[in-house]
Amino acid sequence: MKIDSEGFESLLKKYQLRAEKTLNQWLPDEQVNPVELHQAMRYSVLAPGKRVRPILVYATASTLGLGLQLVDGIAAAVEIIHAYSLIHDDLPAMDNDDLRRGRPTCHRKFDEATAILAGDALQALAFYILSHDDNMTHSSKARLKMIEKLSLFSGSRGMAGGQAIDLESVGKTLNIAELETMHIHKTGALIRTCIQLSALSSKQLGADQLRALDTYAKCVGLSFQVQDDILDVVGDTSTLGKPQGSDIERNKPTFPSVIGLDASREKARELHHKALDALSIFGEEAEILRYISAWFVERTH
Amino acid sequence: MKIDSEGFESLLKKYQLRAEKTLNQWLPDEQVNPVELHQAMRYSVLAPGKRVRPILVYATASTLGLGLQLVDGIAAAVEIIHAYSLIHDDLPAMDNDDLRRGRPTCHRKFDEATAILAGDALQALAFYILSHDDNMTHSSKARLKMIEKLSLFSGSRGMAGGQAIDLESVGKTLNIAELETMHIHKTGALIRTCIQLSALSSKQLGADQLRALDTYAKCVGLSFQVQDDILDVVGDTSTLGKPQGSDIERNKPTFPSVIGLDASREKARELHHKALDALSIFGEEAEILRYISAWFVERTH
Repeated sequence: MKIDSEGFESLLKKYQLRAEKTLNQWLPDEQVNPVELHQAMRYSVLAPGKRVRPILVYATASTLGLGLQLVDGIAAAVEIIHAYSLIHDDLPAMDNDDLRRGRPTCHRKFDEATAILAGDALQALAFYILSHDDNMTHSSKARLKMIEKLSLFSGSRGMAGGQAIDLESVGKTLNIAELETMHIHKTGALIRTCIQLSALSSKQLGADQLRALDTYAKCVGLSFQVQDDILDVVGDTSTLGKPQGSDIERNKPTFPSVIGLDASREKARELHHKALDALSIFGEEAEILRYISAWFVERTH
Repeated sequence: MKIDSEGFESLLKKYQLRAEKTLNQWLPDEQVNPVELHQAMRYSVLAPGKRVRPILVYATASTLGLGLQLVDGIAAAVEIIHAYSLIHDDLPAMDNDDLRRGRPTCHRKFDEATAILAGDALQALAFYILSHDDNMTHSSKARLKMIEKLSLFSGSRGMAGGQAIDLESVGKTLNIAELETMHIHKTGALIRTCIQLSALSSKQLGADQLRALDTYAKCVGLSFQVQDDILDVVGDTSTLGKPQGSDIERNKPTFPSVIGLDASREKARELHHKALDALSIFGEEAEILRYISAWFVERTH
């Protein structure tokens, strides 16, 4: 697919809206008991957001020539896992954040118990979608594989473990390798999973294509985080949706704090080029993924 | 299988040990990073316990003539979900408990952040086991169905929702129907799921057998909770592993507080008889399930 930057913007918008519509359908009705829990789940998942993870799911499907309805459930599941992790990360015992995406965090809007339970219920919902969605006409075996991957990346050697290492690292001096390891577990793991799950939807994917997509995923997973760290230094609070400088204030190791701002920008560019290199075996059909990689490192919020 | 009460005791012991061995194999190594998170997961799951849920999984498999290795993964998954729910229920924002099974609760032994993450990682681990365990030679379709059921019961309309209703109910006056609804979601849902998942392992189960097992499950799920409430009034702290009277102190509605102690005992007996009635279509092979129902209402801790 040949696209220009205007076409890219409109594709992003289309994917965002599609993801939000799907999420809306899967989330429990807030008229139904327990009302407050359901409100908290919807509040957090449907908060304004970039929908980066569903976008990667759809873009991968589009690259592989798959119908988007085939991966709607995957897009919803990964975004729900992401939303749950944010709710729990924001809790007083963790990062103790009051603002998320420009609005009160879940435990500030509701209460702490509701926020814990909303996260818990959302994690369960993600696995429910992958096991239950009728639009997923994949083989049962492929779906099991997706659940296996998503649960592995959500667990103690994935996202939850990454958050544990993150908490331990506050106030510590990490070297660049340790910092990368932390982020690969935390942000990178889920971004990689998005692409892997979407790729699992294709029946005729070769090993080299799968490898190429995985390399791409690792690069953009890390470049996204590097840019996040950069924006914490140079962005402004109103566009970030969270206080600018909050990582610094919390004494969290970030790319700029470990290697400096210029080297961080260089790192992001380098990862972007690596991502593009990985996609060289694909033709025009991967344009959307190339644009996404550029977007990750050029974004201002 | 013909068993007497001595044979029952030894079967229980066998199932408990088998479950603990399986759990030990699935839990992450506490030498591996993040060490503290892995310690917290093992500490909570391997805490001394009755292993009621794995026992029900194994007993159902035995009743249906299935090999126990087929359901080891199920037994581990349900116990892990149970352990995760206890860790989160005990948190300061929830029930704020210091003791669990006679030992400090997870957040008291470690810290609150680690306890939240341990619960999160355990939920993911349960789904990982069901999707990954090689000993589960079930069809992929049957395994997807198990994941669907377990995720549905773990979610906002199951266990997490039950806990939300539970928290809302503190200090309120519930009628007996509301109390039953709360417990059916909380304890009952997972007990029912144990039996359903184990039953899904059989390829030749008739609809009437499935219905009978489900009725049994609903009865014992509730009778177990009634007896728990009774023991909170009449039990003693040392055998309970938690302070006797902790529900009363917390002003939680319980069966004795809503219908009185005698009526609660009568209720437990009645549920036990209903459970036995449901099993009448099975012969001697269901003896173990009958013994379990009796154990639930006669136990002193």
